[in-house]
Amino acid sequence: MSLLVVGSVALDSVETPFGKREDVLGGSGTYFAAAASLLTSVSVVGVVGEDFPLEDLEFLRRRGVDLDGLERARGKTFRWRGRYGFDLNAAQTLDTQLNVFEHFSPNLGGRARKAERIFLGNIDPELQMRVLDQAERPRLVCADTMNYWIASRRAQLLSLLPRVDVLMVNDSELRQLTGESNVMKAAHAAQGMGAKAVVIKRAPAFPLTDVVDPTGAGDSFAGGFLGLLDRLDSAEPAALRQATVMGSTLASFTVESFSLERLRDLELAEIKGRFDAFRHLVQFEALPDRLDRGS
Amino acid sequence: MSLLVVGSVALDSVETPFGKREDVLGGSGTYFAAAASLLTSVSVVGVVGEDFPLEDLEFLRRRGVDLDGLERARGKTFRWRGRYGFDLNAAQTLDTQLNVFEHFSPNLGGRARKAERIFLGNIDPELQMRVLDQAERPRLVCADTMNYWIASRRAQLLSLLPRVDVLMVNDSELRQLTGESNVMKAAHAAQGMGAKAVVIKRAPAFPLTDVVDPTGAGDSFAGGFLGLLDRLDSAEPAALRQATVMGSTLASFTVESFSLERLRDLELAEIKGRFDAFRHLVQFEALPDRLDRGS
Repeated sequence: MSLLVVGSVALDSVETPFGKREDVLGGSGTYFAAAASLLTSVSVVGVVGEDFPLEDLEFLRRRGVDLDGLERARGKTFRWRGRYGFDLNAAQTLDTQLNVFEHFSPNLGGRARKAERIFLGNIDPELQMRVLDQAERPRLVCADTMNYWIASRRAQLLSLLPRVDVLMVNDSELRQLTGESNVMKAAHAAQGMGAKAVVIKRAPAFPLTDVVDPTGAGDSFAGGFLGLLDRLDSAEPAALRQATVMGSTLASFTVESFSLERLRDLELAEIKGRFDAFRHLVQFEALPDRLDRGS
Repeated sequence: MSLLVVGSVALDSVETPFGKREDVLGGSGTYFAAAASLLTSVSVVGVVGEDFPLEDLEFLRRRGVDLDGLERARGKTFRWRGRYGFDLNAAQTLDTQLNVFEHFSPNLGGRARKAERIFLGNIDPELQMRVLDQAERPRLVCADTMNYWIASRRAQLLSLLPRVDVLMVNDSELRQLTGESNVMKAAHAAQGMGAKAVVIKRAPAFPLTDVVDPTGAGDSFAGGFLGLLDRLDSAEPAALRQATVMGSTLASFTVESFSLERLRDLELAEIKGRFDAFRHLVQFEALPDRLDRGS
């Protein structure tokens, strides 16, 4: 079992109704790896700048995450600045600095090339394609994308989709990609474009009283989802269902704190506890036979 | 087992991206009764005008619905006119004519007074209170409300809540009532105001490819919810879970057509089939023990 993520390793500045943080650890690759590494072995491919505090990733290394594919390039680290209002559903992006990501080309090391499952984080579809071109034997490819790429890199995205097993997007991205307003029809349309399956991320799944910062929820979901599939070494329907709940479970921890504060010290026992709570919450019995009124 | 609903019996004019209808059967009492009567015995209390086509309610009478409490008053029937855009989540109300509802005061007949479970549809909280004052032995009282009453009849609503077992509202109504933005905290706050339980309606639960007209979804949910609780004669947690899914099941049929077209000819076998499909859709197994990595 082995899992590869290509995505951003970033410094985020975030403001929510519950506080603010400046230049804290963020990025799709980071959230994904922090979530998935609680379940399986992960390799990260990405790039940081000379200003990046590498000690912030020590907790990942201690969990066995392979960081050989994380380049350190001249220049500054990718930075994102955003703000959330009280509904916490949509981030308002205030500033994006690509910095070292502008000239990044993913380069997979030995362990990364052999990964059986791959998460293509939300980056240029052309870079996502280059990752697949280097992968030797991927059994499951999962890709995220966003409105910006759907609009500006449509052709590249469309040539990527036939190589994607699971497209992981939210409602509005799926509608934008397919032009279908009904979510079920839109999912079928995306399958018609080549994606074998579509996972639609909807927030929030597990009912929480304290949501502090939604940043990273989607990537943590992906990390829990693929992390469990890799751990179980399965893509059977039963495993896909559990993986969906595992993704929601990991995401629910992420949003309880800023940055990766909650994921950093999270333990498997806590994850299993919340997964079980989730299961209890949504479980219900079949209808009794006596429902028939003789009609 | 017996169920009472007080609510509007109306003529709706609706426009959605999939078509339009003029002066068709609508109203919270109607949708509720059509859904609940597939599961249990229902009495309706409400009012229509001289212009109301009573033959439109024949299908309810054939299902054994008690319409003795449905007054026919001088004047015109309550009318609502609305429009939905492509997202189908929020109706834009174009016109509301209270007509005979303006001077309506609910008057419970013999069967209605003895009802064990009561649904207070979305009407003036003062009228909802008058219904409770006439009920002899309600074991479960469920109430809907809306932004208009929360703003203009707040005092009346607050004195009603301690007599309500289940407050059934959507996210934004709950936030408006309690001033809490987090939905879980808002539900607890509503419980602090006296409601024993809170059901938050979120659309849509069952994935459908063809949503034609969302009108009546909430009242059909309530009808399925209370209809099953009455049929099972239970308010145990296991029954409440099934009732929530039954509510979503009935609502999913309602939105497939305009007005009550789909509910009119619906049969119990179809309901059970979709309930089972729902169950299959959300079911997942516990995590295997082998998940432990020896950590």
